[in-house]
Amino acid sequence: MRSFLTIILLSVLGSGAVAAEPPDLIVYGDYLLTMDPETGLIEDGAVAISGGRIIAAGKRSDIDSRYVATKTIPGAGRVLMPGLINGHTHTAMTLFRGMVDDLDLMTWLNNYVFPMEGRFVTPEFVRTGTQLACWEMIRGGTTTFVDMYFYPDEIARVVDECGLRAVVAAPHIDYPSPGFSGWDDSFAAAKDFVTRWTGKHPRITPAFAPHAPYTVSAKHLQATVEAAAGSDAMISMHLAEAPAETAYIREHFATTPVQHVAGLGLYDRRLIAAHMVQLDDKDIALTAAAGVGAIHNPTSNMKLGAGISPVPAMLAAGVNVGLGTDGAASNNDLDMWEEVRMAALLHKVASGEPTTLPATTALAMATRTGAAAIRMADTIGQLKPGMQADMIQVDYTGLARQPLYDIRSHLVYTLDASDVVTTIVAGKLLMQNREVLTLNNAALRSDVQKASDKVRSALTAQAPGQ
Amino acid sequence: MRSFLTIILLSVLGSGAVAAEPPDLIVYGDYLLTMDPETGLIEDGAVAISGGRIIAAGKRSDIDSRYVATKTIPGAGRVLMPGLINGHTHTAMTLFRGMVDDLDLMTWLNNYVFPMEGRFVTPEFVRTGTQLACWEMIRGGTTTFVDMYFYPDEIARVVDECGLRAVVAAPHIDYPSPGFSGWDDSFAAAKDFVTRWTGKHPRITPAFAPHAPYTVSAKHLQATVEAAAGSDAMISMHLAEAPAETAYIREHFATTPVQHVAGLGLYDRRLIAAHMVQLDDKDIALTAAAGVGAIHNPTSNMKLGAGISPVPAMLAAGVNVGLGTDGAASNNDLDMWEEVRMAALLHKVASGEPTTLPATTALAMATRTGAAAIRMADTIGQLKPGMQADMIQVDYTGLARQPLYDIRSHLVYTLDASDVVTTIVAGKLLMQNREVLTLNNAALRSDVQKASDKVRSALTAQAPGQ
Repeated sequence: MRSFLTIILLSVLGSGAVAAEPPDLIVYGDYLLTMDPETGLIEDGAVAISGGRIIAAGKRSDIDSRYVATKTIPGAGRVLMPGLINGHTHTAMTLFRGMVDDLDLMTWLNNYVFPMEGRFVTPEFVRTGTQLACWEMIRGGTTTFVDMYFYPDEIARVVDECGLRAVVAAPHIDYPSPGFSGWDDSFAAAKDFVTRWTGKHPRITPAFAPHAPYTVSAKHLQATVEAAAGSDAMISMHLAEAPAETAYIREHFATTPVQHVAGLGLYDRRLIAAHMVQLDDKDIALTAAAGVGAIHNPTSNMKLGAGISPVPAMLAAGVNVGLGTDGAASNNDLDMWEEVRMAALLHKVASGEPTTLPATTALAMATRTGAAAIRMADTIGQLKPGMQADMIQVDYTGLARQPLYDIRSHLVYTLDASDVVTTIVAGKLLMQNREVLTLNNAALRSDVQKASDKVRSALTAQAPGQ
Repeated sequence: MRSFLTIILLSVLGSGAVAAEPPDLIVYGDYLLTMDPETGLIEDGAVAISGGRIIAAGKRSDIDSRYVATKTIPGAGRVLMPGLINGHTHTAMTLFRGMVDDLDLMTWLNNYVFPMEGRFVTPEFVRTGTQLACWEMIRGGTTTFVDMYFYPDEIARVVDECGLRAVVAAPHIDYPSPGFSGWDDSFAAAKDFVTRWTGKHPRITPAFAPHAPYTVSAKHLQATVEAAAGSDAMISMHLAEAPAETAYIREHFATTPVQHVAGLGLYDRRLIAAHMVQLDDKDIALTAAAGVGAIHNPTSNMKLGAGISPVPAMLAAGVNVGLGTDGAASNNDLDMWEEVRMAALLHKVASGEPTTLPATTALAMATRTGAAAIRMADTIGQLKPGMQADMIQVDYTGLARQPLYDIRSHLVYTLDASDVVTTIVAGKLLMQNREVLTLNNAALRSDVQKASDKVRSALTAQAPGQ
């Protein structure tokens, strides 16, 4: 056996490949969609992984001639592509999935979401809700997410355990929130969280999360900028989401939400701005020039009646636009395939042009461009040597998915989360043959039942007759 | 055994129930969503079926005390509800699923759809494409569809064999189409088809399908009205779909598409008008007054950039609005759950109001209201005695679907086609435990491969470098 490996290694080195180590894993795919503009789509492809990183991606014949791995995952009937990036969510809100829908925004927030959060959001609740979210994301092929929710240490613990990759942004806000009386303690805790987690974990990136320009004062936003600059941390924030925010900022600061926060020093590559619906031309130009990442949440914007983000104009201006699900309370799931498809459809009807936001662009928003939007363009979102080994296999052979003419179009307009069969992050298998391997299904189901029973009782008590 | 049945029958008759015969089948559901405004949602419900019709629907305890069936289908973890009604599709176009996307409408139609139809649409092609469509619809919980495609006898044969219910509308058009040189032969064939199939099959309703007001002359539309009135047949037609149609009708007839066809006598309860995007207030009032059924196809309208149908205004005016997928070439699937969800989301963002088109309304459009739109309000779309036994069971227990607070909201915003486990039409099981029982999976897959291989070769030859 040793002599065989030696021959392989010699042959690898002889062929000019730089192989620091033999691969741990080779993953195949009838179609390898690298999302690398240089290699694009490779039929009958393979990716070799070592130490959690990609060491080679190319034709199967080429990879097989250069590498032998102890473990392989077959690719027949499957597309191999980068895992999807959910650029904006509130994972633990899965426990509020479908709690109330179809209500006026202020009724929904003030009578349901905020009171329920105040009553039920504890570290244990966040732990269970985040696990449920991670289970759903692993199952649907999401490998990286940007989270903004209370008790971020619990979120980070779940991310560590389940194997996903995440930007965990600690919320701070001028009003009381779960665990905090207001700005001072929430901001202090966020600074502490970012300090403790910076550089600590290969898959967890801590960040600041000032809630929004209408819930955090100008002075506090400036304090956030200073803190983030000091630790070179990212800032995840709701921005320019709905007409009410635009009106509020216009009334108090005589400008747009974007120009307001840009004027406070927030506008640089560290900012991940979620929603970005209410933008004028100058806002778009500023966003492109500053390198701010914009996260488009089409389903949430539609469900809450927030408006249609000018995504085609942002893309044309060079803004890195990613996609997000938002929380499950306003979606009501964390299915990135729906966001990809919705983005492709929504901007066609908004523009009246079926050529708007074609399949290739929609897929890029969920992978390569989405990675750039969260300042991870060099590590995730493409399958090429040196990148983190975050990838998924999607089964394209379901009978109701036939026939297949164009794999990119198929991924956007026909396939969905239920077709994802394999999820890999940093070279580790999180799901194989649709079985989630890193979370305890039965225990999670029981915990979800317990947590939601409490919410259910409160809903019944609060709204008699509902 | 006979004496036991006698006792049961006596007990049934004794309790005042009118039981012409004992049920063939009882289907249960943790939730029975009847879509009957009088009974609404029944927890722990059951439906008893005899001779293809519903003889009772109510609490499980009540049904069990009154009836004993030889066959039962358990309802634990399942919602029992009416099957979904796809009010507008072109089933055989499943074979063109994803053939080309993201193109300008005229390029898509003139360079791809029409030439490919001209080359490949044969009776055999339609048979295979319709089988594929029916497989997908059975799997996704659609029990009735309104079809408009060439070789309707082939479509009717497939409907007969697979067990679904359908309005099969025979297309006639002023231009050459598969099998026909133009209006005269296509209209003659449609009249012949309607004559032959009227009253012939309990699940198949023949209809006329003049393609659209911009492809069928005023004189020919009047001839259609006369023919349909003579046989009391329905007319399925594209109407007021896109701005180009509105402009054409305005130029040639100085009116709107709706007012043009209304003036020709088409506007009555026999008309199923698909799309209905380009409507003014008078069009909406006319549609309501005439009792015309309107079929909203949100995904198709979005994908083709056609515009946003004024569905809330139509509903407010009292129009029966159903939902449709349109053909798979412009969708790219026949998934009614996506249309339900899309309708609920699209009209929220179009109106800026999250209260627009709530879950209950979206569900009604796919069931009760959709049935009324296709003149079948008395036979399908609700689960109540006397109605056809067309129903589905939807599994709500998937972990990524947890928790559950409101079953109607859950059906619209969380569950999807992959959660449907049972499909029943006229009391016959077409799918059980997600296994389609009435179509040959392997033979179908092989036929689809053969048919699509031809299309694929032609695409490659036509567009070198694609």
